[in-house]
Amino acid sequence: MTAPATLTPAWDADAVRQQVGAVIGEFLDRKQALAADAEIAHLIALFRRFVTGGKKLRPLLCAVGWRAAGGQGTPSALLRVASGLEVFHSFCLIHDDVMDRSALRRGQPTVHRSLAARHRALGPDDAHWLGTCGAVLLGDLAHVWSDELLQTAGLTIGQLHRVTALVTVMRDEVLYGQYLDLQSSARPDDDLATALRVILFKTAKYTIERPLHVGAALAGAPPAVLEACTAYALPLGQAFQLRDDLLGALGSPEQTGKSALDDLREGKQTVLLILARHRADPQQADVLGELVGNPALDEGGAALVRRILRETGADRAVEDMIRERYARALHALEHAPFPAETLPVLRKLATDAAWRAL
Amino acid sequence: MTAPATLTPAWDADAVRQQVGAVIGEFLDRKQALAADAEIAHLIALFRRFVTGGKKLRPLLCAVGWRAAGGQGTPSALLRVASGLEVFHSFCLIHDDVMDRSALRRGQPTVHRSLAARHRALGPDDAHWLGTCGAVLLGDLAHVWSDELLQTAGLTIGQLHRVTALVTVMRDEVLYGQYLDLQSSARPDDDLATALRVILFKTAKYTIERPLHVGAALAGAPPAVLEACTAYALPLGQAFQLRDDLLGALGSPEQTGKSALDDLREGKQTVLLILARHRADPQQADVLGELVGNPALDEGGAALVRRILRETGADRAVEDMIRERYARALHALEHAPFPAETLPVLRKLATDAAWRAL
Repeated sequence: MTAPATLTPAWDADAVRQQVGAVIGEFLDRKQALAADAEIAHLIALFRRFVTGGKKLRPLLCAVGWRAAGGQGTPSALLRVASGLEVFHSFCLIHDDVMDRSALRRGQPTVHRSLAARHRALGPDDAHWLGTCGAVLLGDLAHVWSDELLQTAGLTIGQLHRVTALVTVMRDEVLYGQYLDLQSSARPDDDLATALRVILFKTAKYTIERPLHVGAALAGAPPAVLEACTAYALPLGQAFQLRDDLLGALGSPEQTGKSALDDLREGKQTVLLILARHRADPQQADVLGELVGNPALDEGGAALVRRILRETGADRAVEDMIRERYARALHALEHAPFPAETLPVLRKLATDAAWRAL
Repeated sequence: MTAPATLTPAWDADAVRQQVGAVIGEFLDRKQALAADAEIAHLIALFRRFVTGGKKLRPLLCAVGWRAAGGQGTPSALLRVASGLEVFHSFCLIHDDVMDRSALRRGQPTVHRSLAARHRALGPDDAHWLGTCGAVLLGDLAHVWSDELLQTAGLTIGQLHRVTALVTVMRDEVLYGQYLDLQSSARPDDDLATALRVILFKTAKYTIERPLHVGAALAGAPPAVLEACTAYALPLGQAFQLRDDLLGALGSPEQTGKSALDDLREGKQTVLLILARHRADPQQADVLGELVGNPALDEGGAALVRRILRETGADRAVEDMIRERYARALHALEHAPFPAETLPVLRKLATDAAWRAL
């Protein structure tokens, strides 16, 4: 009846990833078997490839939240709920990629690009639009499927109410965050507070806090456990996104699976770029103004922008912010009412998230 | 304990519409109160205007299904589930309008046009894209909200399982139908069977059958009642869509709330147009080939197309199909195991749907 002294396979991140992959695979097998049309079968196959490439960070955090609240083993209900989070995230990414007009995701063409390629014979404009609409619809389907995974997880009525309440809030949060992000890209205002608020909703709460909460709520966590999850998750989630921004501007496509030019071309209002603008001299500011958000930006222009990010010290300032937030996340663990066996896992997750070894 | 002999207010379509409108209004009031940002508040207000203008046909059918299965009164759980169907439908329409690039819906600018207008200062391309992305996100939010209305309806666990299973199937069906519709607009093949299959999923099942089923399942309907709903709903749903196609091509904007040119410009593969192409002489076929699906189609061109729809007799053929399906729907009621009091309501609904007095 006591908690196991050693880490059980449930803490093995790769095992959780594999189990979640298997649940999603079986779910899609059934969708595939029911698909009465070759076009639908193709769409489901495309989704399978997309979701298979995912890092499954949210399911992993969900499984950790379950353990942090005293849950034992890896019951199928937990895996199914965790899988629902991953499929929901696929929905978000597919729609995000449409909105950001991204060409690559996880080293592969984005969904809208794949679908557009099937209609190449119709000319670039029609092909692009059919790809866009098809990706919106596949995202919508993933949204539906994420809900089906949750609703058919075999939860008790108490679990279902607790988890549904959290998932409902999570969905509003991430979509509100996405909308605010869209608005801020339309009206760049170099406001650090706005950029940090978008990070709070789009990443810190959505990527780290809510998955932990969902797992903890499944295990019937009391408020103190949920609050301790929050104290750990919010600084860590900010660190995670700040690292993402650094990699997006300064990393290689091999590291990110995305084009190294996407973020800069799009003019994404990252903390990194806002700090660089605040610190730039007039000449540097002119270069940033001309090149960042310019769809015609090439590798030469990107190299100029990257030099300014370094010369202004914006990159090091973001590294400092990451370190400070990472330290706060670890500090939050010191008094958290979690089983001792979970602490090494949460520390390792924090290191992986802040230095992107995930 | 016996069923009331006269129609209670629950059968008063306007009363059901008002009650559903009130549930959705209160739901959005709470969302509005929680919105911490003016941009989000604006988005919620935009959705409120959108959903208020709806005909609330699906909630009405849900309430009728409840009665057809012996349900009494208009309990709040029923109204909340019915409201969820209406909000889900708003999600579908907002995304549909993006994909169809429609300018008008219910006599007002579509969501993507309204949002684009806010960004006019950025130039037409950026404004259009921000409107498109904003509408995708507002549709996504409506999707989330529809689910929240259902999950917080206060259902018993049995009701929740029955209704969720139906809603899950309904969502797949309508999105599959929408995807097939998109594909067929890319590869027009004049195949009447394909067009009728799209109608089956996109309209007959989604608009008529599933809302009836959801209401009936809430009331604990046995399979025979669900099957009788299907026998009534599928021909009626086809009649409803065939009428929609006729109005889209031949009706006035006052009747439809949409531009009279949208369907023709888009080249929508309606049964009406497929029949016209099958019956056209070579000269008429050339005119249809040139004008239908031509984004530059003007009123003069539309008048030419409409003359061909009439000259080929395609319009009368579609009227015949509507009448035949309407008759089948009424026939299905003759042996349906529904309480007698519901039959006049179902007959009136059939007439309204087939002749669009809704």
